[in-house]
Amino acid sequence: MSELNEVTLSSEQVYDGRVVSLRLDRVRLPDGREVTREVVEHRGAVAIVPVEDDGQIVMVRQYRTPAGKILLEIPAGSMEEGEDPHACAQRELEEETGLTADVLEPLTFFYSAPGYCTEVIYLYHQARGLRPASRQADDDENIVVERVSLLQALAMVQMGEICDAKSIVGLLMVRG
Amino acid sequence: MSELNEVTLSSEQVYDGRVVSLRLDRVRLPDGREVTREVVEHRGAVAIVPVEDDGQIVMVRQYRTPAGKILLEIPAGSMEEGEDPHACAQRELEEETGLTADVLEPLTFFYSAPGYCTEVIYLYHQARGLRPASRQADDDENIVVERVSLLQALAMVQMGEICDAKSIVGLLMVRG
Repeated sequence: MSELNEVTLSSEQVYDGRVVSLRLDRVRLPDGREVTREVVEHRGAVAIVPVEDDGQIVMVRQYRTPAGKILLEIPAGSMEEGEDPHACAQRELEEETGLTADVLEPLTFFYSAPGYCTEVIYLYHQARGLRPASRQADDDENIVVERVSLLQALAMVQMGEICDAKSIVGLLMVRG
Repeated sequence: MSELNEVTLSSEQVYDGRVVSLRLDRVRLPDGREVTREVVEHRGAVAIVPVEDDGQIVMVRQYRTPAGKILLEIPAGSMEEGEDPHACAQRELEEETGLTADVLEPLTFFYSAPGYCTEVIYLYHQARGLRPASRQADDDENIVVERVSLLQALAMVQMGEICDAKSIVGLLMVRG
């Protein structure tokens, strides 16, 4: 399949930001044509499907500027420079929900939008031993923690009420 | 939940591109703090899970610059300015696979990365009547069409060989 490979001829950074950066790559396609690819650079992120002992999924509700509305999602967040995905998942779970997990198992990883963005999301599943963290999360007025049953969450996926890619992947994967 | 709403104070475009644009929004958070949000603007896209009469899923293999490697994905593509998602799904299916569908049913929609990107993907399912288009797709040397059974595709998701969000959502949703 190496005949599908593109060759990068040059690369120019046009924006260097906090969450994302943007670069323009000049590439040669397999058929010989040259085109410019816009590449959004992102450090990568984690997402967690936290399940309480009674089967409730712990989710977070927050306003999302790009969507222009409030979304219900599984806990998630970007990795710090050099941070290990597993450590990041423990940190984000605690920061966003005030909970800590004994065992955080990797479910899968995926590109959010591989056509134009480098972001990889590492998805974790917490199946048992979820409990309040010793140090409680800061009282964040910008995030509301919400518990829903898996059945209810899957119905919300069907109805488009849970509508972000990572949450849908996480919920469908733990459904098994 | 309106107490979670953010207020946009100002907005500045820093890049205006072909696939993506980038703007910086100054917003006031619910707790009163002001922060800057980087927002990647994208017109939106469609993705299709095309299933042949014998149950094979039609997928496409192509090089993805942001990932720096070749990925196997379900057919997908960005909407043209003002294009209807359903028409776009018909067009992209034909362009990428050379196939046309009698019935293209909406499965769901989702944000790829609602924390920083406006892209919404409309996902379609083609359950019957897939056939060669009257006008064959251009012989695109940059995309290879590949057929896999649903079982095989789901195993590839488990093993991380199919690793982009829209493909995973599509395959897990048609598994039912």
